[in-house]
Amino acid sequence: MVSIRKIFSVFTILLLLVGCSTSVKEVKKENNSNEDYVHKPKKVTEKQSIFPQHSDINDAPVPLKIERVDSTTVNVEMTSQITDIEIDMGVKYKAWTFNGQVPGPLVVVNEGDTINFTLKNHDPVMPHSMDFHAVHTAPTKGFVNVMPNDRGTFTYKASYPGVFMYHCGTQPILMHVANGMHGTIIVKPKNGYPTDNEVDKEFVLIQNEWYLNNKYKNLQEGEPTYVVFSTKSLNTEGRNTNGDTFSLQNEPLVAKVGDKVRLYVNNIGPNEVSSFHVVGTVLDSVYIDGNPANKLVGLQTIMLPASGGAVVEFTVKEEGSYPILTHQLKHASKGGVALLQVTQDGKFDPTALSMSH
Amino acid sequence: MVSIRKIFSVFTILLLLVGCSTSVKEVKKENNSNEDYVHKPKKVTEKQSIFPQHSDINDAPVPLKIERVDSTTVNVEMTSQITDIEIDMGVKYKAWTFNGQVPGPLVVVNEGDTINFTLKNHDPVMPHSMDFHAVHTAPTKGFVNVMPNDRGTFTYKASYPGVFMYHCGTQPILMHVANGMHGTIIVKPKNGYPTDNEVDKEFVLIQNEWYLNNKYKNLQEGEPTYVVFSTKSLNTEGRNTNGDTFSLQNEPLVAKVGDKVRLYVNNIGPNEVSSFHVVGTVLDSVYIDGNPANKLVGLQTIMLPASGGAVVEFTVKEEGSYPILTHQLKHASKGGVALLQVTQDGKFDPTALSMSH
Amino acid sequence: MVSIRKIFSVFTILLLLVGCSTSVKEVKKENNSNEDYVHKPKKVTEKQSIFPQHSDINDAPVPLKIERVDSTTVNVEMTSQITDIEIDMGVKYKAWTFNGQVPGPLVVVNEGDTINFTLKNHDPVMPHSMDFHAVHTAPTKGFVNVMPNDRGTFTYKASYPGVFMYHCGTQPILMHVANGMHGTIIVKPKNGYPTDNEVDKEFVLIQNEWYLNNKYKNLQEGEPTYVVFSTKSLNTEGRNTNGDTFSLQNEPLVAKVGDKVRLYVNNIGPNEVSSFHVVGTVLDSVYIDGNPANKLVGLQTIMLPASGGAVVEFTVKEEGSYPILTHQLKHASKGGVALLQVTQDGKFDPTALSMSH
Repeated sequence: MVSIRKIFSVFTILLLLVGCSTSVKEVKKENNSNEDYVHKPKKVTEKQSIFPQHSDINDAPVPLKIERVDSTTVNVEMTSQITDIEIDMGVKYKAWTFNGQVPGPLVVVNEGDTINFTLKNHDPVMPHSMDFHAVHTAPTKGFVNVMPNDRGTFTYKASYPGVFMYHCGTQPILMHVANGMHGTIIVKPKNGYPTDNEVDKEFVLIQNEWYLNNKYKNLQEGEPTYVVFSTKSLNTEGRNTNGDTFSLQNEPLVAKVGDKVRLYVNNIGPNEVSSFHVVGTVLDSVYIDGNPANKLVGLQTIMLPASGGAVVEFTVKEEGSYPILTHQLKHASKGGVALLQVTQDGKFDPTALSMSH
Repeated sequence: MVSIRKIFSVFTILLLLVGCSTSVKEVKKENNSNEDYVHKPKKVTEKQSIFPQHSDINDAPVPLKIERVDSTTVNVEMTSQITDIEIDMGVKYKAWTFNGQVPGPLVVVNEGDTINFTLKNHDPVMPHSMDFHAVHTAPTKGFVNVMPNDRGTFTYKASYPGVFMYHCGTQPILMHVANGMHGTIIVKPKNGYPTDNEVDKEFVLIQNEWYLNNKYKNLQEGEPTYVVFSTKSLNTEGRNTNGDTFSLQNEPLVAKVGDKVRLYVNNIGPNEVSSFHVVGTVLDSVYIDGNPANKLVGLQTIMLPASGGAVVEFTVKEEGSYPILTHQLKHASKGGVALLQVTQDGKFDPTALSMSH
Repeated sequence: MVSIRKIFSVFTILLLLVGCSTSVKEVKKENNSNEDYVHKPKKVTEKQSIFPQHSDINDAPVPLKIERVDSTTVNVEMTSQITDIEIDMGVKYKAWTFNGQVPGPLVVVNEGDTINFTLKNHDPVMPHSMDFHAVHTAPTKGFVNVMPNDRGTFTYKASYPGVFMYHCGTQPILMHVANGMHGTIIVKPKNGYPTDNEVDKEFVLIQNEWYLNNKYKNLQEGEPTYVVFSTKSLNTEGRNTNGDTFSLQNEPLVAKVGDKVRLYVNNIGPNEVSSFHVVGTVLDSVYIDGNPANKLVGLQTIMLPASGGAVVEFTVKEEGSYPILTHQLKHASKGGVALLQVTQDGKFDPTALSMSH
């Protein structure tokens, strides 16, 4: 099995040299109703080359399977697959994904859980793998490659609570992560957060970058084309968006006047740190990497390393729209703005959105 | 009023496309007497284009108006105006400013204060606005555009102590902030800092970037031309400098041998994080974002996100000059060095400065 | 003496303008046995120019001299010298060094020690100096230039425990640090760390950047060619590597299954911040800048400013290889990966390494 992995890795490198890249289809841009803090997509003029073996693939998203076996054991099954993702209005990216989403589906487990994790690799040409930042395992055992059309099962424990990144760990990692193979795993603290009783609303917000010119050299040297946010549901019924420039502006997160809002935040990168900021409020509490012991208070902005997480809480005292962004403004200018709408009844009001400026 | 704002926003975008930029006049560079850690300005060879409607404007700085109404209410009036700022010796930038300074005037209020804020917009062609990181308000109400030659008044509360950024929030924000519309508001903690009794001297130091090539695309993709520090007075009588490469080197901050010095620090960005460092000492205390509850000790360098603040304290034990910089040395090489002169009597000694190396 | 320093500084600047740079010799690259997370060196095609006065110099490394005088006094003698360093397999860099190593030799002292420091400058053409982040001194006295073929002695105290950067402080600092004049000084805390009893293994890991195109403008504007790790021994007998792309991959750090590992970490820069991460584990404890009072727990990744340090501790529960990297993946893709091999007996197993994938 080792030698097969090596052969595939070499194969992968060769393909990359041949001209690995991802197809981008462009359609007419539509206007966006929010004017302040809102990204205006630039016209994509550069024709993207295509990673040939992926060019005809656009797999329908396979749902995440997550099943609790007993009070301390969870089975998780994920699928690596090639799926088109709309990252800007009318701009589609043939992404390398977990389960047809980018970021991949949110995984939520409890502190102390043992995770039996299965990765099914639907990519017909490339090995993929899984690296959960939340677990203890020898990477050379627990995070190894799963071959095309193969599956692998791994077991490890999530001993620390928090908000952790996961990602494909197959070489070249930068390519796999930049093309979309990343997401967030939340490990809920056994004893909760000291501020649990105060929180009215909870959301997940993930920051990631996209590189339309995704030649390896540009991933290493260039600037991101987009820096975007996405949200994922904390339960099985809610809303999951991809990392794009429009979803969280056209249909914002919604809270009620007076709510204390908690965000589980994760900065995926792959390359940039984040200066995470909510306009119009101050962060009451910040738990670094989501650990209840790492508490800061009264922050305007929280510094997130690449892959870093946080739980942040803040209060929204007035009706209106609150942009959420990285205060590295060149990144915010590339789509990195989500909106939180605050209404009297906590329900989405599309008319308020369009009149907000 | 909404539709007028929209029209102006569209107008702004159009102007930007036509070739928004800022005039730069260059004169002969003078030598700088400090050799170590000191920026040597590069010759500016590129002729800057001019934002046409601003080309004949150079408004004299309008003083900040700040007036305490009662124990918990403060009136603050600021003016957005176009004013030439000398950012490098002989290099003038036609900046978009608050009150003719870049960074704008320091605002100091108390924890719990209600701020009645008025923005007078003297810019004849462009809307501007104010986003205080220190307050709670719906951005779509409290941070909205004020039209050219108009004024707007807003009321909000400063509930958290600390060192906060403020900036124009009008789109494109990156352009407004990069062109100079930013500053610092300090909210003094009700119960002070635990180290208040130990501090002998207090200063404000603000880091910001300048982009001589200030086309929007370069603001998004390029490197800053200058990374600079400025100081602002904590009371009405002291010294206020602009963010430039020379003021705090030619005439440093001054302390006395043995002093414990406190700096209120703010990294404006707009794009870069800061690795804030004082040469020749170790930071005794660091309060992240200036909140007394967020204390670290014994730091060599404090990581500041874009827009992040800190209160830092350190002791100067010997006579001489202490450079203060971001330890991201490529930025320090672009002007990002301030000097603190330490003398026996705490008075500025120009001869010591010139003999310091 | 002042005027001599000035003359030399001017001389230095002139030389830089003439075309200061560093020779790079290239030989055939060899393959690397680790496939995941491992840097593949790009072919260096650009012929590097040579700083003419250094072209024939390649001084053999002079050992660090460190000698304890009494319980609170240490004599330290270091040498600035020009020495070829292999930074990528077959790529040699004519580095400006302390003692022929890059990073320079590790200096370990105790909290409260007075350091009598002597710098012998073996560089025949350029002044150099020493800036220890761990000490209190007036930079204009304690960190001043030592002339070519001269020596200087300075005395200062290390009052704070932690992991601190040191570097040459001679202008232009960015050039001196980027060319190799940097290292780490550890100040051991008087009362230790609260977790001292739990730690089984200790290592030092230092991150630094290399710029093959080391023209000053590129140091200010460009991306690093390599981002690398090195290790230094905590005692006089252990292993010291240079900051290169291969040493810590071909011969990893080694620990035993079940060990709690402590790393003394320092991010040299000179330009980039670090998102320091260990694959396959979670950081049990993190002491920011290595101060026992600045404790965080359960982190996936620790944000290090340029020049920032940390003490991090984690547990390795299974046999295998654990990559250590900055999670700013574009940097990790440029060599910034060290390996920790975990074996049953805690001894290096070269066969396990080659079979690890």
